[in-house]
Amino acid sequence: MAKEKKLVESITSMEEDFAQWYTDVVKKADLIDYTSVKGCMVIKPAGYAIWENIQHELDRRFKETGVQNVYLPMFIPESLLQKEKDHVEGFAPEVAWVTHGGLEPLQERLCVRPTSETLFCDFYAKEIHSHRDLPKVYNQWCSVVRWEKTTRPFLRSREFLWQEGHTAHATAQEAEERTIQMLNVYADFCEEELAIPVVKGRKTDKEKFAGAEATYTIESLMHDGKALQSGTSHNFGDGFAKAFGIQYTDKDNTLKYVHQTSWGMTTRMIGAIIMVHGDNSGLKLPPRIAPVQVMVIPIQQRKEGVVEKAREVLESLLAQGIRARMDDSDKSPGWRFSEQEMRGIPLRVEIGPKDIEQNQAVLVRRDNREKVVVALDELAQKASELLVQIQEDMLESARAHRDAHTYTATNYEEFVKTINEKPGFVKAMWCGCQECEDKIKEDTAATSRCIPFEQEQLADTCVCCGKPAKKMVYWGRAY
Amino acid sequence: MAKEKKLVESITSMEEDFAQWYTDVVKKADLIDYTSVKGCMVIKPAGYAIWENIQHELDRRFKETGVQNVYLPMFIPESLLQKEKDHVEGFAPEVAWVTHGGLEPLQERLCVRPTSETLFCDFYAKEIHSHRDLPKVYNQWCSVVRWEKTTRPFLRSREFLWQEGHTAHATAQEAEERTIQMLNVYADFCEEELAIPVVKGRKTDKEKFAGAEATYTIESLMHDGKALQSGTSHNFGDGFAKAFGIQYTDKDNTLKYVHQTSWGMTTRMIGAIIMVHGDNSGLKLPPRIAPVQVMVIPIQQRKEGVVEKAREVLESLLAQGIRARMDDSDKSPGWRFSEQEMRGIPLRVEIGPKDIEQNQAVLVRRDNREKVVVALDELAQKASELLVQIQEDMLESARAHRDAHTYTATNYEEFVKTINEKPGFVKAMWCGCQECEDKIKEDTAATSRCIPFEQEQLADTCVCCGKPAKKMVYWGRAY
Repeated sequence: MAKEKKLVESITSMEEDFAQWYTDVVKKADLIDYTSVKGCMVIKPAGYAIWENIQHELDRRFKETGVQNVYLPMFIPESLLQKEKDHVEGFAPEVAWVTHGGLEPLQERLCVRPTSETLFCDFYAKEIHSHRDLPKVYNQWCSVVRWEKTTRPFLRSREFLWQEGHTAHATAQEAEERTIQMLNVYADFCEEELAIPVVKGRKTDKEKFAGAEATYTIESLMHDGKALQSGTSHNFGDGFAKAFGIQYTDKDNTLKYVHQTSWGMTTRMIGAIIMVHGDNSGLKLPPRIAPVQVMVIPIQQRKEGVVEKAREVLESLLAQGIRARMDDSDKSPGWRFSEQEMRGIPLRVEIGPKDIEQNQAVLVRRDNREKVVVALDELAQKASELLVQIQEDMLESARAHRDAHTYTATNYEEFVKTINEKPGFVKAMWCGCQECEDKIKEDTAATSRCIPFEQEQLADTCVCCGKPAKKMVYWGRAY
Repeated sequence: MAKEKKLVESITSMEEDFAQWYTDVVKKADLIDYTSVKGCMVIKPAGYAIWENIQHELDRRFKETGVQNVYLPMFIPESLLQKEKDHVEGFAPEVAWVTHGGLEPLQERLCVRPTSETLFCDFYAKEIHSHRDLPKVYNQWCSVVRWEKTTRPFLRSREFLWQEGHTAHATAQEAEERTIQMLNVYADFCEEELAIPVVKGRKTDKEKFAGAEATYTIESLMHDGKALQSGTSHNFGDGFAKAFGIQYTDKDNTLKYVHQTSWGMTTRMIGAIIMVHGDNSGLKLPPRIAPVQVMVIPIQQRKEGVVEKAREVLESLLAQGIRARMDDSDKSPGWRFSEQEMRGIPLRVEIGPKDIEQNQAVLVRRDNREKVVVALDELAQKASELLVQIQEDMLESARAHRDAHTYTATNYEEFVKTINEKPGFVKAMWCGCQECEDKIKEDTAATSRCIPFEQEQLADTCVCCGKPAKKMVYWGRAY
């Protein structure tokens, strides 16, 4: 028993130290390993398989909206990065610089892309001439590098994987529509696939992307009450087009600048899955994104016929289209249960000699630990239904947690007290001035997460300065 | 007519200048664009879609053999790269060096991975302890950088996309079996998906991978008679394991070194598809790898009912599981035919008012330009059959070309004459000494492509030095 418990006991409890709990889960669920390159990680098979599922499903949704994939170089010449003023100021301090190729110094330094707006602009300037060349709706899957000082697996690392969409349009309206369309793709993806409810809104000018006219975001709430920016979609207007000279001849034969957007989602979403759904037994994967959905665990498997019957169950699950595996290793059942729980596999089948005698097995849900005894010939069907149910229940449970940790404040004292004492989102009115954002950040370490599309009139005055309020804002401490 | 011809006329004929023909096709078929970063290219939607199909199918075949995907950092600390002596000598002269992170110089230079053996070894040294941890059969899809002096799209670029598999095994035999297994995966993939026949064999010591005990290769022959190394699989023995200290405790409780392999295939295969199958009208894509398999082109489409009927045909093709599109743009039919041919789409459907009257359409094969008139209700079925037939015929045609350009030589005069006058593979006997390889390269610019698994005893003596021959070798000039 001592040995069996070890796996579970080795996780710090989330109530005691959430940050350590997170790091423990990431390691014990076998998602990542650290490397000799500070701030860079190995994404191990169990972690990468989640990313593959994210990629597959996001890519499918992108393509439904007409997105085409491309690949651009990982290097950006320094002169190119500097073409758009706000953009270079935002990124130059955190890029990695290549100065030598082979044995020789380069004539011009190259940075490893932190994001590829400048490369896409350079490309579009050559590709786009006529209104017939528009729109361009391109995306790439790649890794990017940002030389962060402090790093955490998935949440903030020096290299991370993502997709970055970059589009060019004839009109401002079309660009704005695409920006919102992709934000909605992200929001739907998070809710339907990752079972993570999000708040959709616009970033304040202080928090928007370097070079963007408007940045839209989806914000989610982690179990510890901290916010996570989960996907962003930027409308650049014609700012980059002017800096890079991206013009087209319109139908009326006049030269016009294009309007551009970009939008990205990253491996950070694996961190979100962990922090929204996980518990003190480890990871909890939503069935739709889980690489393995059901683990079949035979009990007393040396007894005649047990493994054979368990394999029949496995085959029936696979035939049902379920991603199922069997763990018939020589570890004790308790150890194997703990492993399946740690890895967040949504459902397990326990099947031993007594079950077989009665032509049944036990299905155990990872999310709420409910057990149900099922006849073997109904098991695959029941498992399918349970996976759908688990997905729904996980979303509902995350939504209930988010709603229970979303507060309102109408004066500054209440606001500061809530931020300090009740981890979560705080909704409060704002005058629109950066001074108030700065003061709030200094006083509470909270930032404006977004100006939500769904506005409420909580008060008439700014929670910070008392001047007339323009918008309701979600505030919170964030990853 | 002048305008219609322009697209086709703008390609240099392959007989006149094969290199220029290649560059023209790559550009006119819209596969790539050049960038401001010398030696790096943009892979455009039509090119990247081919790579996505290659990835999808190779990845499927990998996973059938138990491969798991992972992701390792793109940076390698200089000290790590230097751990295996032959390996660093092979790669250090052609890597890109990162020397600054943000505004500060790094304590240790990092190279951008040219390949990831050293990173996988560092990872495996931490992961592998017991025989229970073996085998590890990991792969990653990523981009790598090699600072080449002269570059050509797809064939040799400073950054390219690939997969690199890295495995660790308990025994030398298991490692050798995996090396050959993956070579066979590559060979089958090339023949079955890309319609490219390959010669399987082993590289000579001179040509093997830096740090490998044995390198196996598949070699294909381009239309101009030059060879292309199309995929390699390396057996490292325990050389890297000793350099990196990768040991496991075996069942008998003794410490042993693991045996490792690696294997890779790259975006260069897109170049191979172009150079094996293309003609003076452009690209020819094998149906199984073609992003678009059938293009429906309505003729006199302004006449009532034509586009509607063409769309019905399109729908019937899609319903059959065929990747089909319709080009109903306002360009002339001839222009649209030329575009479909340039882009290598395997089959087109021509449908105009007269066809519709007779309830038929014309199917035109890209590979041999054969036309067949088909009743509309049989069209989708016929198209399916033709796609299978085109795939087979393209492989047979490539095989016939390869075989017709594979020569033998039994003395040096004949050998040099053949290399100089008849572009292709030359089979000849070899004594096993590097001196002869060096002399042949100096005299003819040909290299040993491989020692094929299928040996023939063409003569008893080395074609170069006349000493007793050990092996038959395929020689050729190569990309």
